[in-house]
Amino acid sequence: MYYFLNDYSEGCHEDILKALTKTNLESTCGYGLDDYTKEAIALIKKEINNDSVDIHFLVGGTQTNLCVISLLKPYEAVISCDTGHINVHECGAIESTGHKILTVPNKNGKIDLDACEELINNTSSFHMVLPKMLYISNSTELGTIYTKSELIKLRDFCNKHNLYLYVDGARLGAALTAKSCDITFEDLAKYCDIFYIGGTKNGAMFGEALVILNDELKPNFKYIMKNKGAVLAKGRLLGIQFKGLFTNKLFYKIGLKANEQANKLRAIFNKHNISYYITNDTNQIFIILAKNIYDKIKDQIACEINGSTKDSYILRFVTSFSTKDSDILGLDKLLYNTLK
Amino acid sequence: MYYFLNDYSEGCHEDILKALTKTNLESTCGYGLDDYTKEAIALIKKEINNDSVDIHFLVGGTQTNLCVISLLKPYEAVISCDTGHINVHECGAIESTGHKILTVPNKNGKIDLDACEELINNTSSFHMVLPKMLYISNSTELGTIYTKSELIKLRDFCNKHNLYLYVDGARLGAALTAKSCDITFEDLAKYCDIFYIGGTKNGAMFGEALVILNDELKPNFKYIMKNKGAVLAKGRLLGIQFKGLFTNKLFYKIGLKANEQANKLRAIFNKHNISYYITNDTNQIFIILAKNIYDKIKDQIACEINGSTKDSYILRFVTSFSTKDSDILGLDKLLYNTLK
Amino acid sequence: MYYFLNDYSEGCHEDILKALTKTNLESTCGYGLDDYTKEAIALIKKEINNDSVDIHFLVGGTQTNLCVISLLKPYEAVISCDTGHINVHECGAIESTGHKILTVPNKNGKIDLDACEELINNTSSFHMVLPKMLYISNSTELGTIYTKSELIKLRDFCNKHNLYLYVDGARLGAALTAKSCDITFEDLAKYCDIFYIGGTKNGAMFGEALVILNDELKPNFKYIMKNKGAVLAKGRLLGIQFKGLFTNKLFYKIGLKANEQANKLRAIFNKHNISYYITNDTNQIFIILAKNIYDKIKDQIACEINGSTKDSYILRFVTSFSTKDSDILGLDKLLYNTLK
Amino acid sequence: MYYFLNDYSEGCHEDILKALTKTNLESTCGYGLDDYTKEAIALIKKEINNDSVDIHFLVGGTQTNLCVISLLKPYEAVISCDTGHINVHECGAIESTGHKILTVPNKNGKIDLDACEELINNTSSFHMVLPKMLYISNSTELGTIYTKSELIKLRDFCNKHNLYLYVDGARLGAALTAKSCDITFEDLAKYCDIFYIGGTKNGAMFGEALVILNDELKPNFKYIMKNKGAVLAKGRLLGIQFKGLFTNKLFYKIGLKANEQANKLRAIFNKHNISYYITNDTNQIFIILAKNIYDKIKDQIACEINGSTKDSYILRFVTSFSTKDSDILGLDKLLYNTLK
Repeated sequence: MYYFLNDYSEGCHEDILKALTKTNLESTCGYGLDDYTKEAIALIKKEINNDSVDIHFLVGGTQTNLCVISLLKPYEAVISCDTGHINVHECGAIESTGHKILTVPNKNGKIDLDACEELINNTSSFHMVLPKMLYISNSTELGTIYTKSELIKLRDFCNKHNLYLYVDGARLGAALTAKSCDITFEDLAKYCDIFYIGGTKNGAMFGEALVILNDELKPNFKYIMKNKGAVLAKGRLLGIQFKGLFTNKLFYKIGLKANEQANKLRAIFNKHNISYYITNDTNQIFIILAKNIYDKIKDQIACEINGSTKDSYILRFVTSFSTKDSDILGLDKLLYNTLK
Repeated sequence: MYYFLNDYSEGCHEDILKALTKTNLESTCGYGLDDYTKEAIALIKKEINNDSVDIHFLVGGTQTNLCVISLLKPYEAVISCDTGHINVHECGAIESTGHKILTVPNKNGKIDLDACEELINNTSSFHMVLPKMLYISNSTELGTIYTKSELIKLRDFCNKHNLYLYVDGARLGAALTAKSCDITFEDLAKYCDIFYIGGTKNGAMFGEALVILNDELKPNFKYIMKNKGAVLAKGRLLGIQFKGLFTNKLFYKIGLKANEQANKLRAIFNKHNISYYITNDTNQIFIILAKNIYDKIKDQIACEINGSTKDSYILRFVTSFSTKDSDILGLDKLLYNTLK
Repeated sequence: MYYFLNDYSEGCHEDILKALTKTNLESTCGYGLDDYTKEAIALIKKEINNDSVDIHFLVGGTQTNLCVISLLKPYEAVISCDTGHINVHECGAIESTGHKILTVPNKNGKIDLDACEELINNTSSFHMVLPKMLYISNSTELGTIYTKSELIKLRDFCNKHNLYLYVDGARLGAALTAKSCDITFEDLAKYCDIFYIGGTKNGAMFGEALVILNDELKPNFKYIMKNKGAVLAKGRLLGIQFKGLFTNKLFYKIGLKANEQANKLRAIFNKHNISYYITNDTNQIFIILAKNIYDKIKDQIACEINGSTKDSYILRFVTSFSTKDSDILGLDKLLYNTLK
Repeated sequence: MYYFLNDYSEGCHEDILKALTKTNLESTCGYGLDDYTKEAIALIKKEINNDSVDIHFLVGGTQTNLCVISLLKPYEAVISCDTGHINVHECGAIESTGHKILTVPNKNGKIDLDACEELINNTSSFHMVLPKMLYISNSTELGTIYTKSELIKLRDFCNKHNLYLYVDGARLGAALTAKSCDITFEDLAKYCDIFYIGGTKNGAMFGEALVILNDELKPNFKYIMKNKGAVLAKGRLLGIQFKGLFTNKLFYKIGLKANEQANKLRAIFNKHNISYYITNDTNQIFIILAKNIYDKIKDQIACEINGSTKDSYILRFVTSFSTKDSDILGLDKLLYNTLK
């Protein structure tokens, strides 16, 4: 089985595992009040070059999203593009905290500010929810990334309309290390109100680091977390992992490796003249493959079917720090034998 | 520092760590659909001697509690004794899912069915919530445990009043291995509608195994979990750990060790004529210590202040599989030097 | 001011007022347990020719919608067309009870079952909400109505996909008395799982009658109502009004009058060659009017701006039992003077 | 049947009915944006001698309570005494908006600040909800009222602990007109953060006027109302009624009449040597009556059983503006015949 199902199919990077092993029997207080967590926070503050932020560690992405969005008042809504993770793949977790998601059509997986502008202009009284947060993911659910210029426009738009800008960074590692990326952690800290740095999909066993820039969103966030069941008892496990990720640039190395493996995979697809559903340079590759071809190889590859037309499937291949070259070569051979 | 702060101050049992390490780079599908999770489920089914249950793995206790209780209808309430974890220490997580907790005074940390009966008898119309679930923890927040006879009475009471019986087993390991315990996993499976087996406080890195007995509570539970942000991406981490806990009776060994260390600690307290706030034979010890004594030793011990009177503190000491004999001996010496 | 703003701009029909006045100082028990409420229930059961239904009276439409939809489980969602009242004009009331609204594009204000089918086919795992209810309004927010054939198709679709069919009848009076309508109350009772009969927009001072057909939705509904603050203390006010509406066919007379006044208004618009944004034969008329014309008359008419293009407005005119002929004639004259 | 069941057993005061009748067919805009509502707001502002408040009209008490309390953040809680309406008789409506009610034992139906102080002192970390609002009702559920001195102490307590003071004034009419009352509307406006003036139980057909003093609680309250289904379409019905209540001191006259009728009733009970469960001088009377006596008269009186001991019932008799002297005299005769 050649494995391209997702970037969380394995455990964690060996350096992370070593850190967890080394500290395993140390005694610390719980709930993220330990020193490892403090060290991880200090390292992230340094990386984003901003000391006046609040940082919290959570176990997963949906959990992080629902905690953040539950900061809104009952009648306040979050705007997302239709493909946004919160809108599609969180089983109503956001609505379950009481908040409506207002959607606009995506453009290559990214949010379209013209559509947002129109949506907001049509929102005018207490009969309708009050848009208060703009949600984007970077990289997006389609693997595309935002440019610095786009990020600045998002900030301006949010300023104009009194919105919080929230970046879901589940795949921020792949985004920031993509060849075409001109955004840095410093930029995120400068232009967002709140964002999270994904660990789960970037080499951690699990964990996301939430960075709160806007003072309005800071007070009592730990209460929100506990209120949503999102405070890990052995919180130091998150601190140890993020300390690891932000030591010796491991976070970047892991993201870079995922993208490199993706590029190797793209080379294979190109060689076989396989066409793309959408192009990007991060670790998610979306190809269009004839159904009859897919049916011949499906037992030997692990990837996701993301959609279909009459004759073809849209398939998603995801790479990670742990994607094996042998799997890529195996796929090459498999395609060669199938397509010949 | 002699460490008795809680039973989740360290990482995990070495066998668990080995299992996580060994499987670290294997590729599996996510969300608990992997084979390790299936193996863990099979082992638990065998342990409880019941094959027709649904089993799900979650990361933490509050998360598990809020998922379970959100199965109730909006107007249905859960009954807990006042000291119940859901009532005191979950920051309103249950209410946040929309459900009222009806409380009755505890008796030694346990629920009092006479008080429950009175409460239900005073609940008579649509102006009041409808009691639908009875929540107990075993061992309780005061370290006490339920007897088999009490468990059967709880079942009868729940039958009579059409309530689900839910057992929070965060510290089930310590409960089932306590000397005075006459309950088995089979009993729990026989008399409860739903219960969870705590991993976090019994040697796992994290994780709880939820066992659903009652068919009414089974459908679509994975949806509830996702809806609350409680599906771990790398779900196999939970499967691997619970497979470990239910292999070679590790779950029992860990609970037993915690209780043994507690007994050693009790011997020390007895020797120093220290009195107890409440007695039990599990891994939580509640002593009464004069404030002036505590102030002299507080920098050298890690334990929790659970309450106070004018001159004394109620202190909680918790032991675990990883409580060191040297800490117990150190405490002995410290008390000797302080009390002499 | 010629008044076409909506169908709830006035108090109530004189027969209703008389009934409220006549009974004003009688003493009854509260919360809808009185005899007037029982009489109203009996009259509605007779009208829908179904004795095995549960009927509850609520004050308003949004309140009714949120009570009904909160019957769903946390992860269950309701499907609505994009223009559905619950999706646009209830300030997130549905989401506030924890439920996602899945939307499909409307066709003339009506739901499109092909789009629903596609939506459901793309909903396949616990990562996504589970569609469980289909919401339609009749007449729709655009004044259009469903035919009997369409209603039967909706029923079949719901059977196929295990959905509850819920009809928001805020303007059911205008719908059932429209010339093109081939649906009766009996049909609604036959094909829906739950629907409500709007009083507020059909001559009552306030009030909606909720009819529950499906046994699964019946238990403890009064608890849901109380839980949402939707039980009126002096519940008999609702009973008295609905008794009035279902005596001497008053409900139909009021709906018919609204539609008749709308037809008189349409004749005026036709005379002046004004074009329609959408056509229907109920009491909401949507016209397209040049902005410069509107600006000249806006101080003399009360109607709603529902949208705009570069040069024109989409205006909504609503008639009711209390729409005055003099207002219609006044508008005619105004248009004559403005357009000449 | 002698009727003392409650103070909302009849319709409304004749002046209110006249006002509703007189304005019935006038056309106004909806949702409380009409001129009658504005006039009512102006009258209340004058009555409380404070022009910088926000005032909103809602249909019922539970609805008002749940809207107000949903202003809190998810982890914030409201403190109430155990007998508080929100805690007992609202079917979990507050918890349904996600908030925990922290309870303290009542003292004569009133909140005990010592108990509140202790509760707050035991609330110390993100594991527990954060108390943020203090809820009292005046008159209380036991008919007792707060003195000015108590009100000031409540304000001081709330200042000390950073709590909002919220007064549920469902029966404020009876409270403010009680002989022992030394509180005025001006006092409420001076010492509360938010309170509501009950119409339903003081002569209106329905309706409560919410007065928001604290600026933090003002923004977008109409959105909260819509979000909870609490905006009445024909909002002017509320404006007309409250305009009526605050014209010619009708609000006071109605409260006074209720209390006068209660005093007549007390005279009867005194004459018959019937003892009281609790004493107060408002319109709720709680007596203790032997069960065998009650059983003899129960078919001829409408009152509520509020509790029981072995041999006696606690009965609640409620009077209102519409309590008939003939009912009081009838009860006198009935007691005479039964007790002789």
